[in-house]
Amino acid sequence: MKKEILFSPGPTNVPAEILLAGAKRTIHHRTKEFSVMLEEATKGLGRAFDTKGDIFILTSSGTGGMETAVVNFLSRNDNVLVLNTGAFGRRWVNIVKTYGLVPDVLEYPWGESFKISDVEAKIKEKKYKAVLCQLGETSTGVVNDIKSLGDMVPKDTLLIVDAVSGLLTEEFHMDKWNVDVCVSGSQKGLMMPPGLAFIAVRKGLDDKIGKGDLPSFYFSLVHAKTYGEKGQTPWTPAVNLIYQLNRALEMLEEEGLDNVITRHKNMAQIARKTVVEMGLELFSSAPSNGITAVKVPEGIDGSKLIEHICEKYGVRFANGQREYKGKIIRIAHMGYVTVPDILMALNCLWLGLKKSGFKTKPGAMLSALETAAALD
Amino acid sequence: MKKEILFSPGPTNVPAEILLAGAKRTIHHRTKEFSVMLEEATKGLGRAFDTKGDIFILTSSGTGGMETAVVNFLSRNDNVLVLNTGAFGRRWVNIVKTYGLVPDVLEYPWGESFKISDVEAKIKEKKYKAVLCQLGETSTGVVNDIKSLGDMVPKDTLLIVDAVSGLLTEEFHMDKWNVDVCVSGSQKGLMMPPGLAFIAVRKGLDDKIGKGDLPSFYFSLVHAKTYGEKGQTPWTPAVNLIYQLNRALEMLEEEGLDNVITRHKNMAQIARKTVVEMGLELFSSAPSNGITAVKVPEGIDGSKLIEHICEKYGVRFANGQREYKGKIIRIAHMGYVTVPDILMALNCLWLGLKKSGFKTKPGAMLSALETAAALD
Repeated sequence: MKKEILFSPGPTNVPAEILLAGAKRTIHHRTKEFSVMLEEATKGLGRAFDTKGDIFILTSSGTGGMETAVVNFLSRNDNVLVLNTGAFGRRWVNIVKTYGLVPDVLEYPWGESFKISDVEAKIKEKKYKAVLCQLGETSTGVVNDIKSLGDMVPKDTLLIVDAVSGLLTEEFHMDKWNVDVCVSGSQKGLMMPPGLAFIAVRKGLDDKIGKGDLPSFYFSLVHAKTYGEKGQTPWTPAVNLIYQLNRALEMLEEEGLDNVITRHKNMAQIARKTVVEMGLELFSSAPSNGITAVKVPEGIDGSKLIEHICEKYGVRFANGQREYKGKIIRIAHMGYVTVPDILMALNCLWLGLKKSGFKTKPGAMLSALETAAALD
Repeated sequence: MKKEILFSPGPTNVPAEILLAGAKRTIHHRTKEFSVMLEEATKGLGRAFDTKGDIFILTSSGTGGMETAVVNFLSRNDNVLVLNTGAFGRRWVNIVKTYGLVPDVLEYPWGESFKISDVEAKIKEKKYKAVLCQLGETSTGVVNDIKSLGDMVPKDTLLIVDAVSGLLTEEFHMDKWNVDVCVSGSQKGLMMPPGLAFIAVRKGLDDKIGKGDLPSFYFSLVHAKTYGEKGQTPWTPAVNLIYQLNRALEMLEEEGLDNVITRHKNMAQIARKTVVEMGLELFSSAPSNGITAVKVPEGIDGSKLIEHICEKYGVRFANGQREYKGKIIRIAHMGYVTVPDILMALNCLWLGLKKSGFKTKPGAMLSALETAAALD
């Protein structure tokens, strides 16, 4: 018997309650019944983003949400500043280039977060229409300091944040932190199947929607706003995923949104402490709550190690992306993951490392337990 | 007790087997396991479209699929011909205008299909980069003659067909009928929840992907093709909807794809015959297999009638769109609908009409049964 459990950063594990919530009768989306559930969903998401602004639910992946943020608020030839701390930072660069914007890119080595002083220097030098960045950079396990960024970015420069994996795993307060547009997705902290993206727009900014000159139809928030006012979506939405979204929000609010963040913080602390005790090195200098990236020890093939642990124990870690394939292991602890789960995952990592010939320090797993006990 | 059943053209009814197929453990999309199921899905869809071309599965509504067809194959200022036979024809116009194309529009009164001779005259007059049209126009219950169109459109003009509601409800052979690009969606003939769009690209046309100058990222088939070759999708797909897609394809292939079309044809025949016998008038001069649109009799408020039938019996018909709201009733019989279902729906229509004071002719329901018997 093998139980497959995901420690990959999206898709993540989905509780049976949420899976089954999607197995309800599909209803028509031009009905009061649908509007009621859409309103419930947007209100819940508003609390998750901590915003009084508008929330739009898209049927797409998080990347579709990122594109939505660009095409609705920016224009061709706009100067924008991208804070690129990994694969998803690079995605912002590719999206804005696709639409003919002119990005300046502050690019950091993978594993590092952006430096506020660098951003400050750039912003003094030049006027930007927008700053684009990640809250959590999923490819590297880094968390960026959005609070300080929000304090510093000028009011007339849009701050656009990808919180696809950061939402509900990191502390985040969209309104308080002066974030203008924020994107997230269903398959991370929200512990749902993939298929929905969310975009939150700060109050007072909705009059800027559609004022730019970039073409968009499916992702146009002009349509989304018009229909949103009637409690609808412009296009046929993934109705059954919205059932699941409401069930997920219900479960998370029952746990308490602050407790959800604390749970992620605790799991990250256990993971970090333990891998270091094992003799591994953390990859990220500013490690996130949602994912712990560790360097694969010299002489070991990380890809094989990950595959072995998955084959043998059903525990699926994520590989490094691009040039870090086989070089880092990403242990995601986001969404439907508990302290016992992360302990189990670390035990399997220990077993895998032992099998591959790496000598883990003897006290590592005891330290994991002691860290967990101290957090009780 | 009231059982809600959809006779609306998307979302449509979803069998419990398919709902539950989505309630399986969400797997990671960068795995062999996922590639196997994606290949199964694309092969099955290839049989449904009747094409040997490439199939791409998008996480979006059908409208996202329509936009995908435009942005990947066309360019700014391209002359295109749109055959506009209703709300979805108008959608083509809006999408191509959004991207700065120059459409000539052959616009027909709602309820009529396009005339091949009109298209022929237009094509003789001017060289078009593409002709865009609908197989089934859902807003009016019209089916268009794609076969004749495909015979006539020049080889170097792209024929782009929206078969969102037409696929698996109407006879359709993409390759044989010379269709270049065809779009469909999950929540119609495929009897699935909404959330997936499909785009089929005729063999030999894939070298044209991404050669135009329209911007696109999420909907770019360049990315989709690159990842498709490794058995993946570029962005995190709605994994659980793909479970459902494979279950749906399995059920439909068990019935036999030809039998699926025949079932739709038979239901449409029963619906048309019966409403006429009731004393109602058909709205469409070229009625489709998937949806029967009827005019609401003089003096009756169609919106109230539809609401009454839904409130009282759980049977949800669709209202007319735009200027036809309250003026027509659309009885969809697509997807998970059987001959007994359509008989039941017609009985409820009869009851609703009686309640609203309309004198249906006495023999109508007997005629429904006799039509059904004759089709046995």
